[in-house]
Amino acid sequence: MDYPNDQDPGAPIRSGIPEHGRIPKYYAVKARIAALVAELGEGGLLPTERDLSERYDVARETVRQALRDLLLEGKLRRQGRGTVVAGPKLEQPLSLASYTEGVRRQGRTPGRGLITLDRFPCNDTLAADVGLTRGEPVWHMERVLLADDERVGLESTYVAVARVPRLDTDFDPDSSFYSYLHEQGIVFGDADERIETVLAAPREALLIGTPPALPMLLIHRVSRDTLARPLERVRTLYRGDRFSFTAHLGG
Amino acid sequence: MDYPNDQDPGAPIRSGIPEHGRIPKYYAVKARIAALVAELGEGGLLPTERDLSERYDVARETVRQALRDLLLEGKLRRQGRGTVVAGPKLEQPLSLASYTEGVRRQGRTPGRGLITLDRFPCNDTLAADVGLTRGEPVWHMERVLLADDERVGLESTYVAVARVPRLDTDFDPDSSFYSYLHEQGIVFGDADERIETVLAAPREALLIGTPPALPMLLIHRVSRDTLARPLERVRTLYRGDRFSFTAHLGG
Repeated sequence: MDYPNDQDPGAPIRSGIPEHGRIPKYYAVKARIAALVAELGEGGLLPTERDLSERYDVARETVRQALRDLLLEGKLRRQGRGTVVAGPKLEQPLSLASYTEGVRRQGRTPGRGLITLDRFPCNDTLAADVGLTRGEPVWHMERVLLADDERVGLESTYVAVARVPRLDTDFDPDSSFYSYLHEQGIVFGDADERIETVLAAPREALLIGTPPALPMLLIHRVSRDTLARPLERVRTLYRGDRFSFTAHLGG
Repeated sequence: MDYPNDQDPGAPIRSGIPEHGRIPKYYAVKARIAALVAELGEGGLLPTERDLSERYDVARETVRQALRDLLLEGKLRRQGRGTVVAGPKLEQPLSLASYTEGVRRQGRTPGRGLITLDRFPCNDTLAADVGLTRGEPVWHMERVLLADDERVGLESTYVAVARVPRLDTDFDPDSSFYSYLHEQGIVFGDADERIETVLAAPREALLIGTPPALPMLLIHRVSRDTLARPLERVRTLYRGDRFSFTAHLGG
Protein backbone atom coordinates (compact mmCIF):
# COMPACT_ATOMS: atom_id res chain seq x y z
CA MET A 1 0.00 0.00 0.00
CA ASP A 2 1.20 3.49 -0.76
CA TYR A 3 2.21 5.80 1.99
CA PRO A 4 0.59 9.23 1.82
CA ASN A 5 3.62 11.38 1.16
CA ASP A 6 2.07 14.77 0.71
CA GLN A 7 2.75 16.08 4.18
CA ASP A 8 4.68 19.12 5.24
CA PRO A 9 8.26 18.54 6.29
CA GLY A 10 8.25 18.10 10.02
CA ALA A 11 4.64 16.99 10.20
CA PRO A 12 4.56 14.27 12.84
CA ILE A 13 3.35 11.58 10.48
CA ARG A 14 6.27 12.13 8.10
CA SER A 15 8.59 11.11 10.85
CA GLY A 16 7.06 7.66 10.53
CA ILE A 17 8.83 6.87 7.28
CA PRO A 18 12.03 4.97 7.84
CA GLU A 19 14.89 6.10 5.57
CA HIS A 20 15.21 2.64 4.07
CA GLY A 21 11.66 2.96 2.83
CA ARG A 22 10.23 -0.18 4.37
CA ILE A 23 7.13 1.01 6.18
CA PRO A 24 5.27 -1.50 8.32
CA LYS A 25 1.92 -2.10 6.63
CA TYR A 26 -0.07 -1.22 9.75
CA TYR A 27 1.74 2.09 9.93
CA ALA A 28 0.82 2.98 6.35
CA VAL A 29 -2.79 2.19 7.29
CA LYS A 30 -2.41 4.30 10.40
CA ALA A 31 -1.22 7.25 8.31
CA ARG A 32 -4.24 6.86 5.99
CA ILE A 33 -6.62 6.71 8.93
CA ALA A 34 -4.87 9.72 10.52
CA ALA A 35 -5.60 11.67 7.31
CA LEU A 36 -9.21 10.50 7.48
CA VAL A 37 -9.36 11.60 11.14
CA ALA A 38 -8.24 15.09 10.14
CA GLU A 39 -10.96 15.22 7.45
CA LEU A 40 -13.73 14.00 9.73
CA GLY A 41 -12.93 16.39 12.57
CA GLU A 42 -13.76 16.05 16.29
CA GLY A 43 -16.70 13.78 16.98
CA GLY A 44 -16.72 12.34 13.45
CA LEU A 45 -17.65 8.65 13.26
CA LEU A 46 -14.99 6.38 11.82
CA PRO A 47 -16.00 3.62 9.37
CA THR A 48 -16.04 0.12 10.86
CA GLU A 49 -12.98 -2.13 10.96
CA ARG A 50 -14.49 -4.19 8.18
CA ASP A 51 -15.08 -1.12 5.98
CA LEU A 52 -11.56 0.12 6.60
CA SER A 53 -10.00 -3.25 5.80
CA GLU A 54 -11.94 -3.34 2.52
CA ARG A 55 -11.12 0.26 1.72
CA TYR A 56 -7.37 -0.23 2.19
CA ASP A 57 -7.36 -3.86 1.06
CA VAL A 58 -5.60 -5.15 4.17
CA ALA A 59 -6.41 -7.72 6.84
CA ARG A 60 -8.72 -6.79 9.72
CA GLU A 61 -5.83 -7.38 12.15
CA THR A 62 -3.76 -4.74 10.34
CA VAL A 63 -6.57 -2.20 10.71
CA ARG A 64 -6.98 -3.20 14.34
CA GLN A 65 -3.30 -2.55 15.07
CA ALA A 66 -3.49 0.89 13.43
CA LEU A 67 -6.64 1.74 15.43
CA ARG A 68 -5.04 0.52 18.66
CA ASP A 69 -2.17 3.00 18.20
CA LEU A 70 -4.53 5.86 17.40
CA LEU A 71 -6.67 5.03 20.44
CA LEU A 72 -3.63 4.86 22.76
CA GLU A 73 -2.47 8.19 21.40
CA GLY A 74 -5.84 9.78 21.99
CA LYS A 75 -6.54 10.57 18.32
CA LEU A 76 -9.62 8.32 18.46
CA ARG A 77 -11.92 7.20 21.22
CA ARG A 78 -14.57 4.54 21.63
CA GLN A 79 -18.14 5.76 21.83
CA GLY A 80 -20.70 3.07 22.42
CA ARG A 81 -19.91 0.44 19.82
CA GLY A 82 -18.36 2.91 17.40
CA THR A 83 -15.07 4.78 17.16
CA VAL A 84 -15.04 8.55 16.88
CA VAL A 85 -12.45 11.26 16.37
CA ALA A 86 -11.29 12.50 19.79
CA GLY A 87 -10.91 16.15 20.73
CA PRO A 88 -7.49 17.62 21.43
CA LYS A 89 -5.73 16.61 24.64
CA LEU A 90 -6.48 18.75 27.67
CA GLU A 91 -3.59 21.09 28.41
CA GLN A 92 -2.91 21.39 32.12
CA PRO A 93 -0.43 24.01 33.22
CA LEU A 94 2.38 22.78 35.44
CA SER A 95 1.69 25.32 38.15
CA LEU A 96 0.61 25.69 41.73
CA ALA A 97 -2.93 26.13 40.44
CA SER A 98 -5.16 23.19 41.22
CA TYR A 99 -6.56 20.56 38.87
CA THR A 100 -9.91 22.31 39.28
CA GLU A 101 -8.66 25.63 37.93
CA GLY A 102 -6.75 24.03 35.06
CA VAL A 103 -9.76 22.10 33.81
CA ARG A 104 -12.15 25.06 34.25
CA ARG A 105 -9.85 27.29 32.22
CA GLN A 106 -10.42 24.94 29.28
CA GLY A 107 -14.17 25.19 29.56
CA ARG A 108 -14.59 21.74 31.07
CA THR A 109 -16.32 20.85 34.30
CA PRO A 110 -13.93 19.34 36.84
CA GLY A 111 -15.10 16.71 39.30
CA ARG A 112 -13.69 14.18 41.73
CA GLY A 113 -14.88 10.93 43.22
CA LEU A 114 -13.56 9.66 46.54
CA ILE A 115 -12.06 6.17 46.39
CA THR A 116 -10.43 5.90 49.82
CA LEU A 117 -9.70 8.13 52.78
CA ASP A 118 -7.72 6.47 55.52
CA ARG A 119 -5.16 7.34 58.14
CA PHE A 120 -2.08 5.28 58.85
CA PRO A 121 1.16 5.65 60.80
CA CYS A 122 3.70 7.60 58.77
CA ASN A 123 6.53 5.54 57.31
CA ASP A 124 10.11 6.57 56.60
CA THR A 125 9.48 7.14 52.90
CA LEU A 126 6.82 9.77 53.55
CA ALA A 127 8.14 11.36 56.74
CA ALA A 128 10.21 14.20 55.31
CA ASP A 129 7.69 15.10 52.60
CA VAL A 130 4.76 15.52 54.99
CA GLY A 131 6.80 16.94 57.86
CA LEU A 132 6.23 14.08 60.32
CA THR A 133 8.30 11.52 62.11
CA ARG A 134 7.76 7.81 61.73
CA GLY A 135 4.56 6.59 63.36
CA GLU A 136 2.68 9.91 63.48
CA PRO A 137 -0.68 9.76 61.74
CA VAL A 138 -0.95 10.69 58.08
CA TRP A 139 -3.98 10.88 55.78
CA HIS A 140 -4.09 9.08 52.49
CA MET A 141 -6.86 10.38 50.28
CA GLU A 142 -7.40 8.80 46.89
CA ARG A 143 -9.73 10.39 44.35
CA VAL A 144 -10.68 9.76 40.75
CA LEU A 145 -10.43 12.93 38.65
CA LEU A 146 -13.22 13.77 36.25
CA ALA A 147 -13.58 16.17 33.34
CA ASP A 148 -17.15 16.55 32.11
CA ASP A 149 -18.00 13.29 33.92
CA GLU A 150 -15.29 11.41 32.04
CA ARG A 151 -12.77 9.68 34.32
CA VAL A 152 -9.36 11.06 33.39
CA GLY A 153 -7.04 10.48 36.34
CA LEU A 154 -6.37 9.17 39.81
CA GLU A 155 -4.86 11.22 42.61
CA SER A 156 -3.29 10.12 45.88
CA THR A 157 -2.69 12.82 48.46
CA TYR A 158 -0.66 12.33 51.65
CA VAL A 159 -0.91 14.98 54.32
CA ALA A 160 -0.25 15.04 58.07
CA VAL A 161 -3.38 14.48 60.16
CA ALA A 162 -2.10 17.24 62.47
CA ARG A 163 -2.40 19.68 59.56
CA VAL A 164 -6.02 18.93 58.71
CA PRO A 165 -7.38 16.88 61.63
CA ARG A 166 -11.00 17.08 60.47
CA LEU A 167 -10.41 16.11 56.85
CA ASP A 168 -12.72 13.10 57.22
CA THR A 169 -15.64 15.12 58.56
CA ASP A 170 -15.60 18.64 57.15
CA PHE A 171 -14.13 18.23 53.65
CA ASP A 172 -16.30 17.55 50.63
CA PRO A 173 -14.19 15.14 48.55
CA ASP A 174 -15.77 16.44 45.33
CA SER A 175 -14.35 19.91 45.99
CA SER A 176 -10.86 21.36 45.62
CA PHE A 177 -8.47 20.25 48.37
CA TYR A 178 -6.42 23.39 47.76
CA SER A 179 -9.44 25.60 48.42
CA TYR A 180 -10.05 23.61 51.60
CA LEU A 181 -6.46 24.14 52.73
CA HIS A 182 -6.83 27.82 51.99
CA GLU A 183 -9.92 27.99 54.21
CA GLN A 184 -7.82 26.43 57.00
CA GLY A 185 -5.31 29.24 56.54
CA ILE A 186 -2.75 27.04 54.83
CA VAL A 187 -1.26 28.66 51.74
CA PHE A 188 0.97 26.99 49.15
CA GLY A 189 4.45 28.38 48.91
CA ASP A 190 6.25 26.23 46.37
CA ALA A 191 6.41 22.72 45.01
CA ASP A 192 8.69 20.32 43.20
CA GLU A 193 7.17 18.21 40.49
CA ARG A 194 8.46 15.26 38.52
CA ILE A 195 6.65 13.97 35.47
CA GLU A 196 7.14 10.60 33.81
CA THR A 197 5.27 8.08 31.71
CA VAL A 198 4.18 4.77 33.25
CA LEU A 199 1.77 1.97 32.44
CA ALA A 200 -1.45 1.88 34.44
CA ALA A 201 -1.53 -0.93 36.99
CA PRO A 202 -4.63 -3.18 36.75
CA ARG A 203 -6.33 -1.53 39.72
CA GLU A 204 -5.60 1.95 38.39
CA ALA A 205 -6.83 1.03 34.92
CA LEU A 206 -10.02 -0.33 36.49
CA LEU A 207 -10.62 2.83 38.54
CA ILE A 208 -9.94 5.17 35.64
CA GLY A 209 -11.67 2.91 33.15
CA THR A 210 -8.77 2.58 30.69
CA PRO A 211 -7.15 -0.39 29.02
CA PRO A 212 -4.26 -1.58 31.25
CA ALA A 213 -1.64 -0.99 28.54
CA LEU A 214 -2.48 2.71 28.19
CA PRO A 215 0.54 4.94 28.77
CA MET A 216 -0.19 7.37 31.60
CA LEU A 217 1.47 10.57 32.73
CA LEU A 218 2.46 10.34 36.37
CA ILE A 219 3.15 13.51 38.30
CA HIS A 220 4.85 13.40 41.68
CA ARG A 221 4.43 16.56 43.68
CA VAL A 222 5.96 17.59 46.99
CA SER A 223 4.78 20.95 48.21
CA ARG A 224 5.51 23.35 51.02
CA ASP A 225 3.58 26.19 52.60
CA THR A 226 4.63 29.84 52.53
CA LEU A 227 6.83 29.23 55.58
CA ALA A 228 8.65 26.47 53.62
CA ARG A 229 7.23 23.78 55.93
CA PRO A 230 6.47 20.42 54.25
CA LEU A 231 2.80 20.23 53.31
CA GLU A 232 1.77 17.31 51.15
CA ARG A 233 2.95 14.64 48.81
CA VAL A 234 0.76 13.91 45.81
CA ARG A 235 0.94 11.23 43.18
CA THR A 236 -1.37 11.92 40.24
CA LEU A 237 -1.90 9.66 37.29
CA TYR A 238 -3.41 11.23 34.16
CA ARG A 239 -4.63 9.43 31.05
CA GLY A 240 -1.84 9.83 28.52
CA ASP A 241 -4.37 9.94 25.69
CA ARG A 242 -6.29 12.83 27.27
CA PHE A 243 -3.68 15.09 28.85
CA SER A 244 -0.66 17.15 28.05
CA PHE A 245 1.14 19.55 30.37
CA THR A 246 2.43 22.99 29.63
CA ALA A 247 5.11 25.11 31.22
CA HIS A 248 6.33 28.61 30.60
CA LEU A 249 10.06 28.86 31.04
CA GLY A 250 11.40 32.07 31.56
CA GLY A 251 11.90 35.01 31.16
CA MET B 1 -0.06 -17.33 43.18
CA ASP B 2 0.08 -15.11 46.25
CA TYR B 3 0.44 -11.42 45.88
CA PRO B 4 3.22 -9.95 48.01
CA ASN B 5 1.21 -7.80 50.39
CA ASP B 6 3.87 -6.53 52.72
CA GLN B 7 4.26 -3.10 51.16
CA ASP B 8 3.83 0.32 52.65
CA PRO B 9 0.52 2.03 52.04
CA GLY B 10 0.95 4.17 48.99
CA ALA B 11 3.87 2.21 47.60
CA PRO B 12 3.33 2.14 43.85
CA ILE B 13 3.04 -1.63 43.64
CA ARG B 14 0.22 -1.70 46.19
CA SER B 15 -1.85 0.31 43.81
CA GLY B 16 -1.85 -2.72 41.56
CA ILE B 17 -4.31 -4.66 43.71
CA PRO B 18 -7.88 -4.24 42.55
CA GLU B 19 -10.36 -3.93 45.41
CA HIS B 20 -12.24 -6.98 44.23
CA GLY B 21 -9.08 -9.00 44.80
CA ARG B 22 -8.78 -10.56 41.36
CA ILE B 23 -5.22 -9.81 40.38
CA PRO B 24 -4.12 -10.74 36.86
CA LYS B 25 -1.57 -13.54 37.20
CA TYR B 26 1.06 -11.70 35.18
CA TYR B 27 0.71 -8.74 37.51
CA ALA B 28 1.33 -10.88 40.58
CA VAL B 29 4.46 -12.19 38.82
CA LYS B 30 5.42 -8.62 37.96
CA ALA B 31 5.17 -7.63 41.63
CA ARG B 32 7.39 -10.58 42.62
CA ILE B 33 9.95 -9.68 39.99
CA ALA B 34 9.80 -6.02 41.08
CA ALA B 35 10.71 -7.15 44.60
CA LEU B 36 13.56 -9.20 43.15
CA VAL B 37 14.70 -6.15 41.15
CA ALA B 38 14.89 -4.11 44.37
CA GLU B 39 16.97 -6.86 46.01
CA LEU B 40 19.38 -7.24 43.10
CA GLY B 41 20.03 -3.51 42.70
CA GLU B 42 21.22 -1.62 39.62
CA GLY B 43 23.11 -3.75 37.15
CA GLY B 44 22.04 -7.02 38.81
CA LEU B 45 21.43 -9.89 36.38
CA LEU B 46 17.89 -11.26 36.36
CA PRO B 47 17.36 -15.03 36.20
CA THR B 48 16.27 -16.32 32.77
CA GLU B 49 12.63 -16.51 31.70
CA ARG B 50 12.78 -20.25 32.13
CA ASP B 51 14.16 -19.96 35.69
CA LEU B 52 11.54 -17.39 36.61
CA SER B 53 8.69 -19.46 35.20
CA GLU B 54 9.90 -22.44 37.25
CA ARG B 55 10.43 -20.34 40.35
CA TYR B 56 6.90 -18.89 40.25
CA ASP B 57 5.31 -21.96 38.67
CA VAL B 58 3.70 -20.06 35.82
CA ALA B 59 3.86 -20.26 32.02
CA ARG B 60 6.77 -18.68 30.17
CA GLU B 61 4.29 -16.33 28.45
CA THR B 62 3.15 -15.01 31.85
CA VAL B 63 6.74 -14.23 32.82
CA ARG B 64 7.30 -12.64 29.42
CA GLN B 65 4.31 -10.31 29.89
CA ALA B 66 5.57 -9.23 33.33
CA LEU B 67 9.07 -8.61 31.94
CA ARG B 68 7.66 -6.64 29.00
CA ASP B 69 5.94 -4.22 31.41
CA LEU B 70 9.06 -3.84 33.54
CA LEU B 71 11.17 -3.21 30.41
CA LEU B 72 8.70 -0.60 29.07
CA GLU B 73 8.72 1.10 32.46
CA GLY B 74 12.50 1.19 32.53
CA LYS B 75 12.88 -0.98 35.64
CA LEU B 76 14.81 -3.54 33.59
CA ARG B 77 16.91 -3.34 30.46
CA ARG B 78 18.33 -5.82 27.99
CA GLN B 79 22.07 -6.29 28.10
CA GLY B 80 23.44 -8.61 25.46
CA ARG B 81 21.31 -11.72 25.79
CA GLY B 82 20.48 -11.12 29.44
CA THR B 83 18.17 -8.80 31.34
CA VAL B 84 19.59 -6.55 34.05
CA VAL B 85 18.20 -4.12 36.61
CA ALA B 86 18.18 -0.62 35.10
CA GLY B 87 19.39 2.49 36.87
CA PRO B 88 16.98 5.26 37.85
CA LYS B 89 15.48 7.41 35.09
CA LEU B 90 17.46 10.49 34.14
CA GLU B 91 15.86 13.63 35.59
CA GLN B 92 15.94 16.52 33.16
CA PRO B 93 14.86 19.91 34.45
CA LEU B 94 12.16 21.66 32.44
CA SER B 95 14.21 24.83 32.02
CA LEU B 96 15.87 27.00 29.45
CA ALA B 97 19.06 25.08 30.14
CA SER B 98 20.06 22.79 27.29
CA TYR B 99 19.96 19.01 27.09
CA THR B 100 23.73 19.12 27.40
CA GLU B 101 23.68 20.85 30.77
CA GLY B 102 20.89 18.66 32.13
CA VAL B 103 22.67 15.42 31.31
CA ARG B 104 26.06 16.70 32.55
CA ARG B 105 24.55 17.69 35.86
CA GLN B 106 23.71 14.04 36.41
CA GLY B 107 27.24 12.91 35.78
CA ARG B 108 26.51 11.52 32.34
CA THR B 109 28.22 12.40 29.09
CA PRO B 110 25.86 14.02 26.60
CA GLY B 111 26.28 13.50 22.87
CA ARG B 112 24.37 14.01 19.64
CA GLY B 113 24.46 12.44 16.22
CA LEU B 114 23.26 14.31 13.13
CA ILE B 115 20.51 12.54 11.19
CA THR B 116 19.47 15.26 8.75
CA LEU B 117 20.13 18.93 8.16
CA ASP B 118 18.12 20.45 5.34
CA ARG B 119 16.51 23.73 4.37
CA PHE B 120 13.03 24.07 2.98
CA PRO B 121 10.51 26.84 2.28
CA CYS B 122 8.67 27.75 5.47
CA ASN B 123 5.05 26.56 5.64
CA ASP B 124 2.08 28.14 7.40
CA THR B 125 2.33 25.82 10.40
CA LEU B 126 5.86 26.91 11.25
CA ALA B 127 5.77 30.55 10.14
CA ALA B 128 4.78 32.26 13.39
CA ASP B 129 6.99 30.07 15.57
CA VAL B 130 10.19 30.78 13.64
CA GLY B 131 9.32 34.38 12.78
CA LEU B 132 9.11 33.93 9.00
CA THR B 133 6.51 34.25 6.30
CA ARG B 134 5.51 31.40 4.06
CA GLY B 135 8.19 30.47 1.56
CA GLU B 136 11.20 31.95 3.36
CA PRO B 137 13.92 29.38 4.02
CA VAL B 138 13.98 27.47 7.30
CA TRP B 139 16.46 24.91 8.64
CA HIS B 140 15.35 21.53 9.87
CA MET B 141 18.02 19.84 11.93
CA GLU B 142 17.39 16.39 13.31
CA ARG B 143 19.72 14.83 15.84
CA VAL B 144 19.78 11.68 17.93
CA LEU B 145 20.46 12.45 21.59
CA LEU B 146 22.94 10.32 23.49
CA ALA B 147 23.75 9.84 27.15
CA ASP B 148 26.96 7.87 27.75
CA ASP B 149 26.76 6.63 24.15
CA GLU B 150 23.26 5.24 24.70
CA ARG B 151 20.65 6.60 22.28
CA VAL B 152 17.94 8.18 24.41
CA GLY B 153 16.08 10.66 22.23
CA LEU B 154 15.50 12.37 18.91
CA GLU B 155 15.36 16.12 18.44
CA SER B 156 14.01 18.17 15.52
CA THR B 157 14.91 21.85 15.51
CA TYR B 158 13.36 24.41 13.15
CA VAL B 159 15.04 27.79 12.89
CA ALA B 160 15.03 30.53 10.26
CA VAL B 161 17.96 30.34 7.85
CA ALA B 162 18.23 34.13 8.16
CA ARG B 163 19.00 33.69 11.87
CA VAL B 164 21.86 31.23 11.44
CA PRO B 165 22.76 31.30 7.72
CA ARG B 166 25.95 29.28 8.14
CA LEU B 167 24.49 26.49 10.27
CA ASP B 168 25.46 23.89 7.66
CA THR B 169 29.10 24.93 7.54
CA ASP B 170 30.21 26.31 10.91
CA PHE B 171 28.19 24.32 13.44
CA ASP B 172 29.43 21.04 14.87
CA PRO B 173 26.26 18.94 15.17
CA ASP B 174 27.69 17.04 18.15
CA SER B 175 27.87 20.27 20.15
CA SER B 176 25.20 22.34 21.92
CA PHE B 177 23.01 24.35 19.54
CA TYR B 178 22.30 26.77 22.38
CA SER B 179 26.00 27.47 22.86
CA TYR B 180 26.26 28.02 19.12
CA LEU B 181 23.38 30.52 19.19
CA HIS B 182 25.05 32.24 22.10
CA GLU B 183 28.26 32.62 20.07
CA GLN B 184 26.15 34.25 17.34
CA GLY B 185 24.92 36.76 19.90
CA ILE B 186 21.45 35.20 20.14
CA VAL B 187 20.27 34.78 23.72
CA PHE B 188 17.21 32.86 24.89
CA GLY B 189 14.53 34.96 26.52
CA ASP B 190 11.69 32.59 27.27
CA ALA B 191 9.96 29.49 25.98
CA ASP B 192 6.67 27.63 26.08
CA GLU B 193 6.82 23.90 26.49
CA ARG B 194 4.20 21.20 26.19
CA ILE B 195 4.87 17.66 27.31
CA GLU B 196 2.86 14.59 26.38
CA THR B 197 3.26 10.85 25.98
CA VAL B 198 3.20 9.29 22.51
CA LEU B 199 4.18 6.02 20.89
CA ALA B 200 7.36 6.04 18.85
CA ALA B 201 6.74 5.88 15.10
CA PRO B 202 8.63 3.06 13.33
CA ARG B 203 11.29 5.41 11.95
CA GLU B 204 11.77 7.08 15.32
CA ALA B 205 11.99 3.72 17.09
CA LEU B 206 14.60 2.63 14.54
CA LEU B 207 16.70 5.77 15.01
CA ILE B 208 16.54 5.66 18.80
CA GLY B 209 16.83 1.90 18.90
CA THR B 210 13.71 1.17 20.92
CA PRO B 211 10.81 -1.22 20.44
CA PRO B 212 8.05 0.62 18.47
CA ALA B 213 5.51 0.21 21.28
CA LEU B 214 7.66 2.05 23.82
CA PRO B 215 5.87 5.05 25.35
CA MET B 216 7.92 8.18 24.74
CA LEU B 217 7.84 11.64 26.28
CA LEU B 218 7.41 14.27 23.60
CA ILE B 219 8.31 17.87 24.36
CA HIS B 220 7.25 20.67 22.06
CA ARG B 221 9.16 23.89 22.62
CA VAL B 222 8.67 27.30 21.09
CA SER B 223 11.24 29.84 22.20
CA ARG B 224 11.95 33.50 21.83
CA ASP B 225 15.04 35.62 22.23
CA THR B 226 15.52 38.33 24.84
CA LEU B 227 13.74 40.81 22.54
CA ALA B 228 10.73 38.46 22.44
CA ARG B 229 11.30 37.67 18.77
CA PRO B 230 10.44 34.12 17.67
CA LEU B 231 13.54 31.95 17.66
CA GLU B 232 13.01 28.24 17.17
CA ARG B 233 10.53 25.43 17.33
CA VAL B 234 11.78 22.14 18.72
CA ARG B 235 10.19 18.73 18.93
CA THR B 236 12.09 16.35 21.20
CA LEU B 237 11.24 12.75 21.79
CA TYR B 238 12.73 11.12 24.89
CA ARG B 239 12.67 7.44 25.81
CA GLY B 240 9.91 7.13 28.38
CA ASP B 241 11.79 4.34 30.15
CA ARG B 242 14.91 6.49 30.60
CA PHE B 243 13.67 10.01 31.31
CA SER B 244 11.59 11.98 33.73
CA PHE B 245 11.25 15.76 33.87
CA THR B 246 11.30 18.00 36.88
CA ALA B 247 9.94 21.44 37.52
CA HIS B 248 10.10 23.78 40.47
CA LEU B 249 6.87 25.67 40.91
CA GLY B 250 6.92 28.59 42.99
CA GLY B 251 7.39 30.50 45.10
